[in-house]
Amino acid sequence: LRTGVPEVILAEGKDPAAVRAIYEDYLSRGEQLIASRVTAPVWAALEDLGDKLIHWEKARVVATKAPEPDPKRSTVLVISAGALDTPVAEEAAVMSELFGNPTERLYDVGVAGISRIAVELGRLDRAGILIICAGMDGVLPSLVAGLALQPVIAVPTDVGYGSAFQGVAPLLTMLNSCAPGVAVMNIGNGFGAAVHATKINRLLTRTEPA
Amino acid sequence: LRTGVPEVILAEGKDPAAVRAIYEDYLSRGEQLIASRVTAPVWAALEDLGDKLIHWEKARVVATKAPEPDPKRSTVLVISAGALDTPVAEEAAVMSELFGNPTERLYDVGVAGISRIAVELGRLDRAGILIICAGMDGVLPSLVAGLALQPVIAVPTDVGYGSAFQGVAPLLTMLNSCAPGVAVMNIGNGFGAAVHATKINRLLTRTEPA
Amino acid sequence: LRTGVPEVILAEGKDPAAVRAIYEDYLSRGEQLIASRVTAPVWAALEDLGDKLIHWEKARVVATKAPEPDPKRSTVLVISAGALDTPVAEEAAVMSELFGNPTERLYDVGVAGISRIAVELGRLDRAGILIICAGMDGVLPSLVAGLALQPVIAVPTDVGYGSAFQGVAPLLTMLNSCAPGVAVMNIGNGFGAAVHATKINRLLTRTEPA
Amino acid sequence: LRTGVPEVILAEGKDPAAVRAIYEDYLSRGEQLIASRVTAPVWAALEDLGDKLIHWEKARVVATKAPEPDPKRSTVLVISAGALDTPVAEEAAVMSELFGNPTERLYDVGVAGISRIAVELGRLDRAGILIICAGMDGVLPSLVAGLALQPVIAVPTDVGYGSAFQGVAPLLTMLNSCAPGVAVMNIGNGFGAAVHATKINRLLTRTEPA
Amino acid sequence: LRTGVPEVILAEGKDPAAVRAIYEDYLSRGEQLIASRVTAPVWAALEDLGDKLIHWEKARVVATKAPEPDPKRSTVLVISAGALDTPVAEEAAVMSELFGNPTERLYDVGVAGISRIAVELGRLDRAGILIICAGMDGVLPSLVAGLALQPVIAVPTDVGYGSAFQGVAPLLTMLNSCAPGVAVMNIGNGFGAAVHATKINRLLTRTEPA
Amino acid sequence: LRTGVPEVILAEGKDPAAVRAIYEDYLSRGEQLIASRVTAPVWAALEDLGDKLIHWEKARVVATKAPEPDPKRSTVLVISAGALDTPVAEEAAVMSELFGNPTERLYDVGVAGISRIAVELGRLDRAGILIICAGMDGVLPSLVAGLALQPVIAVPTDVGYGSAFQGVAPLLTMLNSCAPGVAVMNIGNGFGAAVHATKINRLLTRTEPA
Amino acid sequence: LRTGVPEVILAEGKDPAAVRAIYEDYLSRGEQLIASRVTAPVWAALEDLGDKLIHWEKARVVATKAPEPDPKRSTVLVISAGALDTPVAEEAAVMSELFGNPTERLYDVGVAGISRIAVELGRLDRAGILIICAGMDGVLPSLVAGLALQPVIAVPTDVGYGSAFQGVAPLLTMLNSCAPGVAVMNIGNGFGAAVHATKINRLLTRTEPA
Amino acid sequence: LRTGVPEVILAEGKDPAAVRAIYEDYLSRGEQLIASRVTAPVWAALEDLGDKLIHWEKARVVATKAPEPDPKRSTVLVISAGALDTPVAEEAAVMSELFGNPTERLYDVGVAGISRIAVELGRLDRAGILIICAGMDGVLPSLVAGLALQPVIAVPTDVGYGSAFQGVAPLLTMLNSCAPGVAVMNIGNGFGAAVHATKINRLLTRTEPA
Ligand SMILES: Nc1ncnc2c1ncn2[C@@H]1O[C@H](COP(=O)(O)O)[C@@H](O)[C@H]1O
Ligand SMILES: Nc1ncnc2c1ncn2[C@@H]1O[C@H](COP(=O)(O)O)[C@@H](O)[C@H]1O
Ligand SMILES: Nc1ncnc2c1ncn2[C@@H]1O[C@H](COP(=O)(O)O)[C@@H](O)[C@H]1O
Ligand SMILES: Nc1ncnc2c1ncn2[C@@H]1O[C@H](COP(=O)(O)O)[C@@H](O)[C@H]1O
Ligand SMILES: [Mg+2]
Ligand SMILES: [Mg+2]
Ligand SMILES: [Mg+2]
Ligand SMILES: [Mg+2]
Ligand SMILES: [Mg+2]
Ligand SMILES: [Mg+2]
Ligand SMILES: [Mg+2]
Ligand SMILES: [Mg+2]
Repeated sequence: LRTGVPEVILAEGKDPAAVRAIYEDYLSRGEQLIASRVTAPVWAALEDLGDKLIHWEKARVVATKAPEPDPKRSTVLVISAGALDTPVAEEAAVMSELFGNPTERLYDVGVAGISRIAVELGRLDRAGILIICAGMDGVLPSLVAGLALQPVIAVPTDVGYGSAFQGVAPLLTMLNSCAPGVAVMNIGNGFGAAVHATKINRLLTRTEPA
Repeated sequence: LRTGVPEVILAEGKDPAAVRAIYEDYLSRGEQLIASRVTAPVWAALEDLGDKLIHWEKARVVATKAPEPDPKRSTVLVISAGALDTPVAEEAAVMSELFGNPTERLYDVGVAGISRIAVELGRLDRAGILIICAGMDGVLPSLVAGLALQPVIAVPTDVGYGSAFQGVAPLLTMLNSCAPGVAVMNIGNGFGAAVHATKINRLLTRTEPA
Repeated sequence: LRTGVPEVILAEGKDPAAVRAIYEDYLSRGEQLIASRVTAPVWAALEDLGDKLIHWEKARVVATKAPEPDPKRSTVLVISAGALDTPVAEEAAVMSELFGNPTERLYDVGVAGISRIAVELGRLDRAGILIICAGMDGVLPSLVAGLALQPVIAVPTDVGYGSAFQGVAPLLTMLNSCAPGVAVMNIGNGFGAAVHATKINRLLTRTEPA
Repeated sequence: LRTGVPEVILAEGKDPAAVRAIYEDYLSRGEQLIASRVTAPVWAALEDLGDKLIHWEKARVVATKAPEPDPKRSTVLVISAGALDTPVAEEAAVMSELFGNPTERLYDVGVAGISRIAVELGRLDRAGILIICAGMDGVLPSLVAGLALQPVIAVPTDVGYGSAFQGVAPLLTMLNSCAPGVAVMNIGNGFGAAVHATKINRLLTRTEPA
Repeated sequence: LRTGVPEVILAEGKDPAAVRAIYEDYLSRGEQLIASRVTAPVWAALEDLGDKLIHWEKARVVATKAPEPDPKRSTVLVISAGALDTPVAEEAAVMSELFGNPTERLYDVGVAGISRIAVELGRLDRAGILIICAGMDGVLPSLVAGLALQPVIAVPTDVGYGSAFQGVAPLLTMLNSCAPGVAVMNIGNGFGAAVHATKINRLLTRTEPA
Repeated sequence: LRTGVPEVILAEGKDPAAVRAIYEDYLSRGEQLIASRVTAPVWAALEDLGDKLIHWEKARVVATKAPEPDPKRSTVLVISAGALDTPVAEEAAVMSELFGNPTERLYDVGVAGISRIAVELGRLDRAGILIICAGMDGVLPSLVAGLALQPVIAVPTDVGYGSAFQGVAPLLTMLNSCAPGVAVMNIGNGFGAAVHATKINRLLTRTEPA
Repeated sequence: LRTGVPEVILAEGKDPAAVRAIYEDYLSRGEQLIASRVTAPVWAALEDLGDKLIHWEKARVVATKAPEPDPKRSTVLVISAGALDTPVAEEAAVMSELFGNPTERLYDVGVAGISRIAVELGRLDRAGILIICAGMDGVLPSLVAGLALQPVIAVPTDVGYGSAFQGVAPLLTMLNSCAPGVAVMNIGNGFGAAVHATKINRLLTRTEPA
Repeated sequence: LRTGVPEVILAEGKDPAAVRAIYEDYLSRGEQLIASRVTAPVWAALEDLGDKLIHWEKARVVATKAPEPDPKRSTVLVISAGALDTPVAEEAAVMSELFGNPTERLYDVGVAGISRIAVELGRLDRAGILIICAGMDGVLPSLVAGLALQPVIAVPTDVGYGSAFQGVAPLLTMLNSCAPGVAVMNIGNGFGAAVHATKINRLLTRTEPA
């Protein structure tokens, strides 16, 4: 599998002991290993390896090596609508950093904080790629994609209740965005957004055929 | 049935001859009769009564009497996102007029025309009640409800394709609006929006118990 | 965000310590802060602030200031179908009071208590705005909207089982109400109903442009 | 197949010539043959047999023999909510007659005609079995089942638009009826309702084990 | 509400103390009170009233008075497909008894026990009304309705996994039964089946207008 | 693509002229070319090649060469529930023959013809592989798989109306069959069933590794 | 029920004591009894019978007798896409063995391990029947069915999150496979796959009519 | 609306005369105007302007000016699975050209043509951005994203039948792709894919802040 990003395992639901074994193996070989959706029981099995591992708790991400952003790439700006969207936004942001992208955050600028977007238009303009995480009505990507010339990657979250249907409502909003060109990820898939952003950035810096 | 609005029949799917018979009856008694969703075959059966009837083609509405707006009521402002939302918006606007409300229109101000909303904030502010019709991502009501203090009535339309699912996408957007208090109607139900607006206006002018 | 109502945060799912921090901030500034969907863990973090806070347990609402109903507004009557609909109905009622509306309750008048509606028609008529909460078949708003001239705001609840699909069944009933003009909220969104009612009431009392 | 009712074929979608052939066969043997959902092309193939056949156009039913109601059975009362529900109600009523039940009709008593139900309570009480056909919000069976002690058989219709989803909305309403014991049929299946009613009536008159 | 059956409350989700209070009230008045879907916490609050109450554990039913079957009625035969369908089948059977119907059980005769149906055809024939509870593919009602002349009431259960979708699969099977006249209840609604059966039986024995 | 069956094109929706061009090419090379779901406009473009082509109208299949059943294979028995299921059953049967399998048909043995199954148990037993096509409740595969030791391949059809949802109801019935081991195809995919049967038969006759 | 496989009970949700009682009965008679979906509470009730029982923990299967593969049958190769698909794959593999098939495993060859498929083409070719278990996008069966001539049985799993909808996404992928002839089982139904494979193998070795 | 692409109108469903009027306006001003989803009735109204307009029939696109690809941008490679996916693929390709991107096509390389992908790996590698259009099982993007380092934009099409549900099946496959970073568009939205690709390309060539 040629994906251009380091090995990432999906930890959720996996046997904690098995995940630990893989980590010990990668640590012994001094290689980068990233885990996403690290639940409490998985982290419990990894915890005493803790000083050899980096753990982003909000992002539910664990890695053996620190991020090394590549300054030649354009900045990935991760935007979130509300406080409850943070885990997904953080997964996107931390992964983006781990994959080598300069990464910034602009959180909590959904309906209740929309005025902050106006204030931050400069940051939006300086960014190269926008990742936007939103639940409930999921309108933020439509809004931002109407203001910005950059590629917009939208990630629906399961924030909301009732007819939000665990993220289906914002997923549909994003797929049907009136502002054209919004690229959509699976509900809660901040990781996928980071991979797509990395592939875009890689295109900017490649010197030979992909 | 006490609804506070004149008799309105849903013409679509009904036997055209039967609809004509009802119209002849109401005309002979000089009473108001309104029909919604008047399809081509129904209109064909009514057409030669035409000078006794008023036909709003875009709105698919027919009535025996002209609207008489009551100046004591607050203005109903009907807003639409795109050109294809016009039939639903017109159904809301014509019905609102027929039910006695001063009614204005602000059309085509969705994503592609959002800048016009900024220009028209004055009209928004002067209005008493906002009816907003939108398809595709259905984000317009969320947006306007974040800018306006008036009651917002949202009507999803079946405009769009693929995962818009004949109006389900904007319906869910509206039900999950981050801007609170958006009141939602059935997909394509401009008539219901007009009835709700009329009930609000009636409350403003009532002098005795409802 | 101009909504005409005080700040309301959605507590459910939020970090209890973070919610407490916001409360301490608002308390120190002597400002109103309302939280909805306050779950047990969130309340546990707030409990020792208890004498400075008001907690409506059934409604799952917490506020820093008591309601002050404005007698110039019309009465909001909150109606519920069954005992299990009470949390949603109480969210609507408490929020309505906190937003300044004279508010009454008429609970448990669904199918099993429908005869009580007949008895209470006077209260219905004196009310200005009706909020109706119902689960299962969700028929109560259709019924009441056929008897009353007031604006009807319908809130589906997740009461029921099997093909009630966590509130989808009453949501669809309300969206398709044969009695026209029923305004629908998201499943369980008593808060939104109170905001819409407040916007209607505000229209009644405004003296300058909104 | 022991169903206790005569052979009924579902004509819709069948090859018209094949349906005609079956009819010629049954006519030649002098036996009863009933067809449901007889579409225009099927009827076109049967039309010149017309004087040997009985055709209920609204009901879309064709039979070789006239109904012979059995006075020992209790009356089946077929109730419909609106004019557009008539085809389904008529399918139920004509089939009920063809299966030997005394059958009455009470049409167009939905929300817009609910006051007529009050007037007709006597007929309701005299009936033995109620078949209720309704689309849109499908609330009529809940309402009637709260007033009547008879078995209630509910048939959702595809009347409505948008989120009525071709009859899904009234189907769910009926399945979740707060008034207990409502027996539900497939969307548009007036025939099934008539069979169930016939089986109930047969139980009343059987003298030996079924 | 005229339903012809005693008061039945839905206990699940209700405040256990509130349920106990109602029971104490009915016990003090010596009246029948039936509760369905009695969960462990509700029963815990009732337990020490235990000798005054009857508790059917499998059926999750509690009553203040024992059943008194009326021998003039026809027998209700409750049939289940598999062992996991027993709670729903028992709810139907116990309710049927409590409502005064002679009631029999024929359990576990689904696909794995279909041969037993053949053996029990006599019991089927002697019964007056059939209630059939099945999950997974829900084929049992189609099968039995093809063999029996009695009214068939089908109750889908949430037994199964994956694409059984918590009872949606058998619900659809039953609604679309090729054997005509199958009357369908909500998923898991054994109580509703018993009410419908009681209404049928009541018709058999009524002497005056309903 | 190694599928072990000749080239089959899906004609429906394709440009008729383009389909004709492919046929002319295959005919000129004397090779077998099979088309499925051949609609009227496609056939119109092929018709004058008619004597060089074989057209199974009911099955909507066209081929350049006649079937040559291989007697060493086991018999594929195609079973259908009702007359309207014939096109799908014929697609399965004709394809099965074209792929070299001895093929038999047993049609119209669903609920209305179930007694014929009993009569035909011998044919069932002699067959090697069973393909069963059914719409509406889709119960036939469950039933047959409880009687037969052969591999059962189930094909749901879109026969039915209302909550049959264009084949979703029988699809779910088949996926949740209580009789284990039923292999399910897409709605209307008789072709796929024939391919699976052919792969089973090929296994019986292979002499070297696949 | 003639299924050609030993008695298998679905343990999940059953009363553990009741399951134990059945096991004691079968053990006393020395007969094979297999249980699938054995949850922790069920196993707790069986554990002290442990030396008389065989427990496959990953597969959640318990049996009274060890598998005895029949060398005359063709090999069933169970393939899985990812580590989280193992429980379903193991259910298929262990059941396949218990039903007498020579059985091999090829796990973790989905997208992240696809290169291993290339390496293992020999094993694929030597196998007689392929069972493929995959969640998320469920593309593995389409892929393998394009490379292999054997019958392919696809089992979707509930692995994934968000719009994987507990296995609906891979279920639809498999039902719509462009590589024809993929036979699909219910989500998570490894057992059904093993039964279908056994029926295929039985066909290979039968000497008299089924 | 700042989107970085010329004005594109969605023609489908619009009044043909109105579309013509807009075209006359843009032609008179010598500006680029692009229309997507140009249906037959819309084209009929434009046809006699034909020599001033460019019409891509397969793509259903009309423009007033020819594409002028910018050689400094990276190549957009549009890939399709089958012949029926061509209209969507062509919409993507023509729009991509009209927006200034060097654009290539690689069509019909789905399951039936997968071997051609192997042959064309060079072209894949030389491309900068991949747009992949597929219906039915929608597996092609998963497959290609496992082989290629470029950004992958996936567009589901409504090709298929039955449980493909008009494009829902491939939409879900793409959203759940095991190969990470696949960016998904609405069903049939080739236009959106072209906009996203253009935004990526624009990033490559921008010299000042966006
Ligand atoms: N129960 C509720 N349902 C829906 N929206 C709510 C609810 N409570 C608060 N909100 C809205 O949620 C937003 C607050 O989000 P947050 O800042 O994340 O707490 C505000 O726009 C509120 O109007
Ligand atoms: N309108 C209808 N809805 C549902 N089933 C019907 C209908 N009309 C006839 N049937 C049943 O369909 C079967 C007849 O199918 P067929 O022999 O294909 O015409 C019989 O079992 C009838 O009871
Ligand atoms: N009726 C059908 N249902 C599903 N797939 C089919 C059908 N007919 C042909 N196919 C498959 O569709 C592909 C042919 O696609 P095409 O080249 O576009 O005609 C081949 O993989 C066939 O196996
Ligand atoms: N095929 C298409 N799919 C989705 N959106 C489109 C399409 N074509 C044009 N649009 C967008 O639809 C809007 C044009 O709407 P209108 O002004 O109503 O034609 C613009 O925002 C376009 O970007
Ligand atoms: Mg949002
Ligand atoms: Mg919109
Ligand atoms: Mg209710
Ligand atoms: Mg109705
Ligand atoms: Mg069953
Ligand atoms: Mg069938
Ligand atoms: Mg997979
Ligand atoms: Mg494809």
